[in-house]
Amino acid sequence: MLLKIDRGAKTPVHRQIETETRRLIDQGALRPGEALPPSRELARRLGVNRSTVYQAYADLQAQGYLLSRPGSYNIVQARRKEAAYDPGRRGLFNWARRTTPGARAAHEANLVLAAGAASRRLHEGKFVDFASLEVDPRLYPLAEFRSVVRRVLADSGPDALRYGELKGYLPLRAGIARRLRLHGISASEDEILMTSGSQEGLDLVIRLLCPPGSRVAVEVPTYARFLPLLALNGVEPVPVPMTPAGMDLDALERVLAGSPIRFVYSIPNFHNPTGITTPHAHRERLLSICQATEIPLLEDGFEEDMKYFGKVPLPLKSIDERGVVIYLGTFSKALFSGLRIGWITADRDCIDRLAAVKRFSDLGLSPLVQMAVERFCRLGFYDLHLKRIHRVYRRRLVLTLEEMDRRMPKGITWTRPVGGYTLWVKLPRKMGAAALREHLFDHGVAATPGAEFFPGGRPSEYLRLCIARPNEDEIRTGIRRLGQALASLPA
Amino acid sequence: MLLKIDRGAKTPVHRQIETETRRLIDQGALRPGEALPPSRELARRLGVNRSTVYQAYADLQAQGYLLSRPGSYNIVQARRKEAAYDPGRRGLFNWARRTTPGARAAHEANLVLAAGAASRRLHEGKFVDFASLEVDPRLYPLAEFRSVVRRVLADSGPDALRYGELKGYLPLRAGIARRLRLHGISASEDEILMTSGSQEGLDLVIRLLCPPGSRVAVEVPTYARFLPLLALNGVEPVPVPMTPAGMDLDALERVLAGSPIRFVYSIPNFHNPTGITTPHAHRERLLSICQATEIPLLEDGFEEDMKYFGKVPLPLKSIDERGVVIYLGTFSKALFSGLRIGWITADRDCIDRLAAVKRFSDLGLSPLVQMAVERFCRLGFYDLHLKRIHRVYRRRLVLTLEEMDRRMPKGITWTRPVGGYTLWVKLPRKMGAAALREHLFDHGVAATPGAEFFPGGRPSEYLRLCIARPNEDEIRTGIRRLGQALASLPA
Repeated sequence: MLLKIDRGAKTPVHRQIETETRRLIDQGALRPGEALPPSRELARRLGVNRSTVYQAYADLQAQGYLLSRPGSYNIVQARRKEAAYDPGRRGLFNWARRTTPGARAAHEANLVLAAGAASRRLHEGKFVDFASLEVDPRLYPLAEFRSVVRRVLADSGPDALRYGELKGYLPLRAGIARRLRLHGISASEDEILMTSGSQEGLDLVIRLLCPPGSRVAVEVPTYARFLPLLALNGVEPVPVPMTPAGMDLDALERVLAGSPIRFVYSIPNFHNPTGITTPHAHRERLLSICQATEIPLLEDGFEEDMKYFGKVPLPLKSIDERGVVIYLGTFSKALFSGLRIGWITADRDCIDRLAAVKRFSDLGLSPLVQMAVERFCRLGFYDLHLKRIHRVYRRRLVLTLEEMDRRMPKGITWTRPVGGYTLWVKLPRKMGAAALREHLFDHGVAATPGAEFFPGGRPSEYLRLCIARPNEDEIRTGIRRLGQALASLPA
Repeated sequence: MLLKIDRGAKTPVHRQIETETRRLIDQGALRPGEALPPSRELARRLGVNRSTVYQAYADLQAQGYLLSRPGSYNIVQARRKEAAYDPGRRGLFNWARRTTPGARAAHEANLVLAAGAASRRLHEGKFVDFASLEVDPRLYPLAEFRSVVRRVLADSGPDALRYGELKGYLPLRAGIARRLRLHGISASEDEILMTSGSQEGLDLVIRLLCPPGSRVAVEVPTYARFLPLLALNGVEPVPVPMTPAGMDLDALERVLAGSPIRFVYSIPNFHNPTGITTPHAHRERLLSICQATEIPLLEDGFEEDMKYFGKVPLPLKSIDERGVVIYLGTFSKALFSGLRIGWITADRDCIDRLAAVKRFSDLGLSPLVQMAVERFCRLGFYDLHLKRIHRVYRRRLVLTLEEMDRRMPKGITWTRPVGGYTLWVKLPRKMGAAALREHLFDHGVAATPGAEFFPGGRPSEYLRLCIARPNEDEIRTGIRRLGQALASLPA
């Protein structure tokens, strides 16, 4: 057995002996059944300590290269080679047919999103972005957040990096309870569960309430990422049309009188995608319907903090004295999208059960970011930030509506939201998502085809315009381009 | 209408008018149908600007206190009061009967854990902790991590706080791919999905592969949080007994020859809870069985980095040339438990499908913490930290085994792990979890009753001893106390 050992190398000698021996075995120079020299002898030959050889042999034994029977550990064993990286390996195992129908639906939906994202990357830098629904990063209070994280790290010791409380960091829950009071919602800390963004909140509620094959009443159009999430969980959406004043409640009553519905999903403020905010009377009636039928109501308050014109009715949760409403909130739409910090508030028993689902699905959130957000709010930075972005988005929305009035060709109509980020634009005719998206890119503007917000993603005559990202100059340019694009829709 | 307005107060006057009017309506002093004074008149009476009254009326209208018909906005409306906080409200709505069987199972399991945690809090500060499976926080490289987070925040701009890539932060995935090569695993960045700890990895794999009512082959005993996670997903564990050399492979072959199994779950290194590390030959045979039956193998490498004595066989994934193995890793067991950063590596197609499940279940991880971990590893801090804790845990494990030899009463046996944190102690007779836990607390020591690691949680004759938390002094004290406790087990 010829081993090349380099004493000057950084690799320890025992590792060199091990690697070289493996190479000889893998290449067939040493064959199964052959004996290696006893460790004492090899040590003498190589001029190394016997324990060095001993460790190399022990490692080879652990890896199955040498027989592991005591006293005879120096017999070469037949063993599999390590699998090399081989992209051609892909597809040897058929995963598609092993996955659940829900996972397949999620995969299909993800491929559609990936195609959209790929097209977007292709046009990067060449369009005004009315598609993204995240606060303009140019408005991020970065310096304040940095200082807060620094202080949390300095003050917190190891606790910021250990498992936290299951429901979330208690002072943050207390702070959220205080903020919820501003929106008329009374909740204790124990009635709040912190989640990984409100998307996880949606998932937890579905996993709590909906066995596969069950049904959920959904405004149509609705939040685009909710529909594949239902499909992932094997749950069927039962559509309830949106009217200019919100979910059609007569239609809802008919739906609820039909086959069992596990919960009703609604976005009463700045509805995604239509931008509609329902009046108080609509909220009272929706709540009464859910209370009378004893069907839980999932209220998505994803933009509760974006009431920059005032004059917005309070959440349904604020008048929910029977505890039928599960309310979702998030910091993703007014602060940073990538924090992944949202929350659910509902009756204590409901929250306890949601927390149990979260316990086993991911053991709970990291405390570090929660601590930072808590301090950020406590020091008043969040309120200051809201004040600042409210001023900005008030101007952006007013400007957008003015520019729409000026620039849209005849036959195009749109909603006039009272806050939030989205307008719902009605085109003269239906178009498929990809064709509409590409047509807009060709005119230097990005927006979200309405098809994404309807079950099945069929061609739609709508377009979602989102004013989160572009500044005033970009809005002027973008709406002008949009006007040109919509004046020349392909037949 | 008598309104008390305080011009010196911090609350804006329009808010005061609004609040006072609401109070009068809620108290019945103003009744539905009554007219409020026109805004001009009230402004004059109160000596305030008319726009102030106008804003108050508009807000009251939005909240449903005033009729919202244009021109007649000053008629009081019947509306629900805001729901006050009322803990007695709890239970008005019966959540238990609305939840899925899986969610109920998770809730039951969580109640058991909560009872254990409550008992633990009661004895806080009075026991040596052989229960926790997280790195001793006294060994945390806090200064290094703080400096890394600071630098990430300083360098990264808004990107650390925006939505990141779906599969996770690319440089971190590249870094993990490099680390995996140390363990013999070849994977590209695209074959890695970052997860919220390995717990979410387990959940994603179950959601990908297991429709409700399906079955999974599981080592018994096994990781305690895996069983309720299966129950949450409506999946049944099919037990395969552990032998001193790992999962009983003859039993596994019989199980796989029976009704369909969606995947096999195994922890080959430092098995939780038994501490057993399987030999290479066992791994080859387990892999061959899964390849022959075409059943995916989920390999949980939760303590791959805790090979502090060397001499541990490489992961099954390292010899998986057909791509049947899904491998889970995590930073929770060698670095910080609360980071919630784990990963899955598998064939590209499998990873793409898992990423789709993650897309819709929580939109992906926060980039901030991933960026910090990536830099922590890149600057060599992780390797330094491993070197340091390896030295510490080598000593702790040697000491623990010595002390066990000295202190355990006759009739007690235990496993002798070659790394990791856990020993599996066999008692002379079976005991229920609560009784055993309390008996140990009474003797000033905490450990995890074996019952937690078996489906159904029935009384067991085992105890898991975990050496992650106590230092050498505490180990000496703790093992002495454990000896006393086990010498006096209640009949």
